[in-house]
Amino acid sequence: MAVKTLRLALSASGNCEMVDITDHVDSLLSDCSIQDGTVTIFVPGSTGGLTTIEYEPGLLRDFPAMFDRLIPKKMTYAHDQTWHDGNGHSHVRASLLGPSLTVPFLEKRMLLGTWQQIVFIDFDVRPRNRRLILQVVGD
Amino acid sequence: MAVKTLRLALSASGNCEMVDITDHVDSLLSDCSIQDGTVTIFVPGSTGGLTTIEYEPGLLRDFPAMFDRLIPKKMTYAHDQTWHDGNGHSHVRASLLGPSLTVPFLEKRMLLGTWQQIVFIDFDVRPRNRRLILQVVGD
Amino acid sequence: MAVKTLRLALSASGNCEMVDITDHVDSLLSDCSIQDGTVTIFVPGSTGGLTTIEYEPGLLRDFPAMFDRLIPKKMTYAHDQTWHDGNGHSHVRASLLGPSLTVPFLEKRMLLGTWQQIVFIDFDVRPRNRRLILQVVGD
Repeated sequence: MAVKTLRLALSASGNCEMVDITDHVDSLLSDCSIQDGTVTIFVPGSTGGLTTIEYEPGLLRDFPAMFDRLIPKKMTYAHDQTWHDGNGHSHVRASLLGPSLTVPFLEKRMLLGTWQQIVFIDFDVRPRNRRLILQVVGD
Repeated sequence: MAVKTLRLALSASGNCEMVDITDHVDSLLSDCSIQDGTVTIFVPGSTGGLTTIEYEPGLLRDFPAMFDRLIPKKMTYAHDQTWHDGNGHSHVRASLLGPSLTVPFLEKRMLLGTWQQIVFIDFDVRPRNRRLILQVVGD
Repeated sequence: MAVKTLRLALSASGNCEMVDITDHVDSLLSDCSIQDGTVTIFVPGSTGGLTTIEYEPGLLRDFPAMFDRLIPKKMTYAHDQTWHDGNGHSHVRASLLGPSLTVPFLEKRMLLGTWQQIVFIDFDVRPRNRRLILQVVGD
C-alpha cells in the first residue's frame, strides 16, 4: 500500500467552463505505480468544483444554465460589497458543488460508466491557470 | 492495509426514487476482510447520485420535491433537443448531487448517525438495473 | 500504511451557522502518526454538512442566503407534518450538500488553497453539540 501525490495543471476560462479531465487523470494513473485504489481529486481553491457528467454539448449548456438560474451572477452578494471582485456567485456555486471527488480504480483504470466523464468546473469570472491535486491511495 | 472492490446490484424505478442501501453496504463490509478504513461508494453512470438522509416517508417526498422545484423536468434542456431521451433534468440533478460518497468504518461497521441512512437516488426516467462500486481501503 | 480514527467535538448554534474547522483538523493531523494521505471528514447525523469556502464575513452571509432562497424554512415539508420538529428544510439542505469531505494531506498539512477553509454547516434549528469523525488513511 502506498500514497502518491500527483498534480494536474490546466487553464480554464471561468464563467462555468467545464473542463473534461478524465483522460488527464487516467494518464497520470497509468504512470503511477499503484494498481488498485482510490484517487481523490481536489481543487485547492474556492471558486472551482468537481463532479461527473456525460460530456456532450447539450449538458455543457444545461449544467451551467442551472447555476445561472439558481445562483445568479446578477444578484447582490455581501462578498462583492466588501471585495469588489464580482465573483460572489462563483464562491457560492463552488461551495455547493464541492471541491473533492473520490473515484475508485482497478488495474490503473477508473471505474467510470461509459457515458461518464470527470469535469472540473471553473466558476470564477476570469481565465486562470489551475492546479488540481490527485491523491492516490492503494496497492 | 489492503484494497477490496465490491459490487452492489440493485434495481431502481427512476424519477428520484431513493433506495436505502445502508444494510447492503454493511453486509458487504461484514463479509470483507478489512476491519477499519473507508468505503467509497461510487455510481458508474451519469443519472444517479448518492447522499445520506434520515430515511423516513416525509423526507422521501421532501427531497425529490426539492429537485422537482429547482431542476424541473418540464423545462427545455439542450440535452433533450439532441438526444430526445427526455432525461436532461436527470443528468443535471445527478451532477449536482455527485456520484461519490466516502464513509468511514471501524470494526466493519460504518460510523453513521442513528438516524442517518445511505441512499442511492435514481434520477433517470425509467426503471433500470444499477450496479454500484464499493472501494474499501483499510486495515 | 495505517488507518486512524479521530474525533472532533464542537458546538454549533444551527440555522446555517458555518463553523471553520480547518485549524482543528490541522491540529488533529499534526498529533497523528500518519505523514501523507487523505483525511475523510464525516458528519454522523442528518442535519449537518461539509464543504470548503473562503471564510470571510460576506460569504458567511451569502452561502446561507442561497439555502434560504432555494430550500426555504417557511414551506410545507412532509417531514414536519409527521415529526413536528420544524427542521424538514434542515434535512433537505444537509442531504443536498452532503455529509462527507475527503482532503489530501502531505507532511501532515492539508493541501488547501490559501483562501480556502473547511466548514461544518449546522442546518438544524437549535444549538447542538456535534461530533465529527476524521478517518485518516495513509503512510
